[in-house]
Amino acid sequence: MAKQQRDISVSEFFAKNRHLLGFDNKRKALLMSVKEAVDNALDACEEAGHLPEIEVRLTQLAEDRFRVKVRDNGPGIVKQQIPNIFGKLLYGSKFHRLKMSRGQQGIGISAAGLYGLLTTGKSIKVTSRTSPRKEAHYYEIQIDTRKNAPMPVKDQSMEVDWPSGTQVEIELVGSYNKGRQSVDEYIDQTAIANPHVRLVYFPPAGEPIEYPRGTDVMPVQTEAIKPHPYGVELGALIKMLQETKSHWLSGFLHAEFCRVSNRVADEICARARLNARAHPKRIARQEAEKLYSAIQQTRLRSPPTNCLSPIGAEQILTGLLKGVGAEFFTAATRPPAVYRGNPFQIEVGLAYGGDLGPDPRTDNGEVQYAKKARGKKGDNGNGSRSPSLARVIRFANRVPLLYQQSACCIFKSIVDIDWRRYRLSQSSGALPQGPVVIMVHMASVWVPFTSESKEAIADYDEIRQEVRLAVQECGRKLAAYLNRRRRQKYEGQRRNIFERYISEVVEACATIKRVNREQLNRDLMVLAKGMTARADEELDEHGRPIAKRGPGRSGSEFGTNTVVVDRDAQPAGALFQKTG
Amino acid sequence: MAKQQRDISVSEFFAKNRHLLGFDNKRKALLMSVKEAVDNALDACEEAGHLPEIEVRLTQLAEDRFRVKVRDNGPGIVKQQIPNIFGKLLYGSKFHRLKMSRGQQGIGISAAGLYGLLTTGKSIKVTSRTSPRKEAHYYEIQIDTRKNAPMPVKDQSMEVDWPSGTQVEIELVGSYNKGRQSVDEYIDQTAIANPHVRLVYFPPAGEPIEYPRGTDVMPVQTEAIKPHPYGVELGALIKMLQETKSHWLSGFLHAEFCRVSNRVADEICARARLNARAHPKRIARQEAEKLYSAIQQTRLRSPPTNCLSPIGAEQILTGLLKGVGAEFFTAATRPPAVYRGNPFQIEVGLAYGGDLGPDPRTDNGEVQYAKKARGKKGDNGNGSRSPSLARVIRFANRVPLLYQQSACCIFKSIVDIDWRRYRLSQSSGALPQGPVVIMVHMASVWVPFTSESKEAIADYDEIRQEVRLAVQECGRKLAAYLNRRRRQKYEGQRRNIFERYISEVVEACATIKRVNREQLNRDLMVLAKGMTARADEELDEHGRPIAKRGPGRSGSEFGTNTVVVDRDAQPAGALFQKTG
Repeated sequence: MAKQQRDISVSEFFAKNRHLLGFDNKRKALLMSVKEAVDNALDACEEAGHLPEIEVRLTQLAEDRFRVKVRDNGPGIVKQQIPNIFGKLLYGSKFHRLKMSRGQQGIGISAAGLYGLLTTGKSIKVTSRTSPRKEAHYYEIQIDTRKNAPMPVKDQSMEVDWPSGTQVEIELVGSYNKGRQSVDEYIDQTAIANPHVRLVYFPPAGEPIEYPRGTDVMPVQTEAIKPHPYGVELGALIKMLQETKSHWLSGFLHAEFCRVSNRVADEICARARLNARAHPKRIARQEAEKLYSAIQQTRLRSPPTNCLSPIGAEQILTGLLKGVGAEFFTAATRPPAVYRGNPFQIEVGLAYGGDLGPDPRTDNGEVQYAKKARGKKGDNGNGSRSPSLARVIRFANRVPLLYQQSACCIFKSIVDIDWRRYRLSQSSGALPQGPVVIMVHMASVWVPFTSESKEAIADYDEIRQEVRLAVQECGRKLAAYLNRRRRQKYEGQRRNIFERYISEVVEACATIKRVNREQLNRDLMVLAKGMTARADEELDEHGRPIAKRGPGRSGSEFGTNTVVVDRDAQPAGALFQKTG
Repeated sequence: MAKQQRDISVSEFFAKNRHLLGFDNKRKALLMSVKEAVDNALDACEEAGHLPEIEVRLTQLAEDRFRVKVRDNGPGIVKQQIPNIFGKLLYGSKFHRLKMSRGQQGIGISAAGLYGLLTTGKSIKVTSRTSPRKEAHYYEIQIDTRKNAPMPVKDQSMEVDWPSGTQVEIELVGSYNKGRQSVDEYIDQTAIANPHVRLVYFPPAGEPIEYPRGTDVMPVQTEAIKPHPYGVELGALIKMLQETKSHWLSGFLHAEFCRVSNRVADEICARARLNARAHPKRIARQEAEKLYSAIQQTRLRSPPTNCLSPIGAEQILTGLLKGVGAEFFTAATRPPAVYRGNPFQIEVGLAYGGDLGPDPRTDNGEVQYAKKARGKKGDNGNGSRSPSLARVIRFANRVPLLYQQSACCIFKSIVDIDWRRYRLSQSSGALPQGPVVIMVHMASVWVPFTSESKEAIADYDEIRQEVRLAVQECGRKLAAYLNRRRRQKYEGQRRNIFERYISEVVEACATIKRVNREQLNRDLMVLAKGMTARADEELDEHGRPIAKRGPGRSGSEFGTNTVVVDRDAQPAGALFQKTG
């Protein structure tokens, strides 16, 4: 038995377990390849400060064979690094730092190349140019899975007509469909979460689709941070003590962690009854344990948040307004929070469109979406007509998450909320019902995914709570809007009935002596109009009117970051009334 | 940017992503460590042909700190291999072969050691003895995560009082609870699926629990098989062509794959229009593609199934009878099937106990289980009383799967079945309701898990279908049993009512002349008894009586592998009537 024991290379491991990386089936494989290439392209552009321009081109070569080609205008990659980046799993610059980026593992694009190689035998093709003054370089790369090492099979200079950037080409067995969980949906949602990106998408058939830039402002550049002491485990602390370049303990604490000033470092040492001038390498295990519990007992500031770059409520609203044909839009941004020492921030956008009941506007985008969601979930052949469920759009570090919804912390938070408080019906343990789209974004230096394929966020209490609070904030605004609408409708009905009978009332009164018929008619009409005006007031959860907070602009009574689109008045391309 | 690019060791990767290995929280971490150690112990014993005796000992050292100690009577591990096996991720003998075993990745036990090291700073301690003639060897091992290499910190000979085997000791941060998803449940279910194992379990508090052997017969020794041609992808085929030791193409096909005779190999070559005598290394990519499609077009036998060792219907029934206090038991075993070239086999056991309505017997084990399941799932604070759901027990290669039930192919198959056909009520998209326990085992040379933590089986159509067919077979037997029970009850009621009125009928008839009162009474009683006898007949799905298949032994009318326990007659330790 001893003879059979041997190393398993990480490439072999993931080749055999490629469903762990999201390459379970042909359809998903196509999506994953596009996703990994686009995520890398966007990261590269943003880190170099280039406003991203991305071109995605799918070419169908045979029934189940596609070529994926993705090009960016980023800084390009130096020649020596190309083989490792595209031909080796677990290699990269993003794993060892704490900074918000789309990629974090150093697996994605190499795995896509490996999948292409496994299914078609074709190499991944990479062309990269670092400057307009230099020639581009072209590589064809395969992975030696037994060694997890790149095998360049072609390596040459090349003329290209673009000044800088990287182009990746993968041939693979895949299948292309439109609709849910498709490449199209991924591109769509990427444009929503990244309004600073210009995207041109060539689907396998049909016209190319251009997503123009919504803003010329780049997202705020994020900083890499040092780990926060609260997130470090005893074993990791011992290892850091062994490996530090600091010569004494307090210096070590100050240098290797964030939010540990010299004063705080001395405080920790004192609490642990350790000499602040002790050499870190000489700290024994028992002493390290004391140090560890002293850290836990010391009050420390939360980690800095300049490592995070949220999308922002304004951009979320812009994205939703472009993508979803609803009538009510609102957004909420939570302050940064921390899980296991990692800072993160939650943002939520909510769109509501159309009546809950039968509505002629059911051909609106968002209602169709909700219907599709129902079709996927509740259709188990028993033919019962279940109501349409809300649609959830999830993002992590600006990347859309399209699979494993029900395993995701975001989904669980939304399902756990009691939506009846916000005037939506809801079955127990399910999404709320109605024409609702809920978009949630988690920005973090380290998003805890449930698998290497990065499809769902792991269920940390801190994350769940932040999602809940942000969604509830949007829910409250939605409830206020729904209350007003309900009241308006009710008052409108009352006025109609009243108006219908005005002339008869006038006639009846006229039979009484000394009544001025015209004056009475005018007075009653004023009364009827007054009813409608009152109906515009905001109502609280119990239907009682609330005093207005801001000046009279419509929408403002629902708080900041809310947009109401009057689709009845201006059916298409409506003017938005935006407040906040 | 280029300077920051560097290798990520697989240990670093999994240390940062340890939730991928199942070490998400303290409770699960304790379970995972026990599980990995026990799985390895059982594999080692069985491969060496030792009837396994396993001792599991949990010691609580502090509020959230435990020592896990697992010892087996296996063949032991040679000294040189110990550091690699316990101190290196992705190392082992099970990954590169196609053979049914509990471990398959070469990650588990090292990951448990790494988790212990990370959380407590303590090494994993391994004592192993390969023969009673040799001394045992003792190691303390840490992992150098940066290199993914073992660092033995202690290494010495040792006297032990057991002749051969391996003992592993890990100190870790964890938490111990009883109930669902606990170490206790894992040990319980391991005993059910491995009746040939003697297990002694020392929980942190209370008396040790002994699981005696249910059988002295070892499971059939399984063989490693070669890959089946249908499961090989183009890229993998090309790589095999490059690496083979065969000198010509047909020889390569015959030597590297199963179910390819020389005749079939020639047939494939002819179909691909390739020379059977061509040198495999000289086959170009385009030719390999032809070869690949020729393989797909050739009719091949299914892979051999001596690589599988199912538990067997008899043992499943024995296990269920021991573990679950139900009244009706049945089991079904499917013939072996294939997914992506890998043979697998599905076995199902089903236990049913107590009435669906209010029942004095609700303190039976299985009803409590079902109640717990409901508590976990449907309790979202709305206070509605949902009915108790069936309980699903999942196994893969004899290992209980306790987490991620709803992500598992087995669960999805069961939920998709229309249980109303089998006389159980069911909400759409949910488990059936009632005091039912469904046990499903998948045996395969390669179980496709959805994550490295091996908690759920990936959703392959072939697997889903086999589970469905096996569960439905059990469902049909259950329906027959429930029908008979319902009929018996109904007829019993009828007879009771009838009997109650016999004397009055007799009185009434007696007023008519020429009626023999005693004779009439006797005749009517005979009639009443006849009704009961008829009620024992088996009824089909529509409630019509079916002719009995076998001789009169109770239970036989439900087919083979079925046990009915008459709990009314013999409340405890009932005699089983077994057929088949």
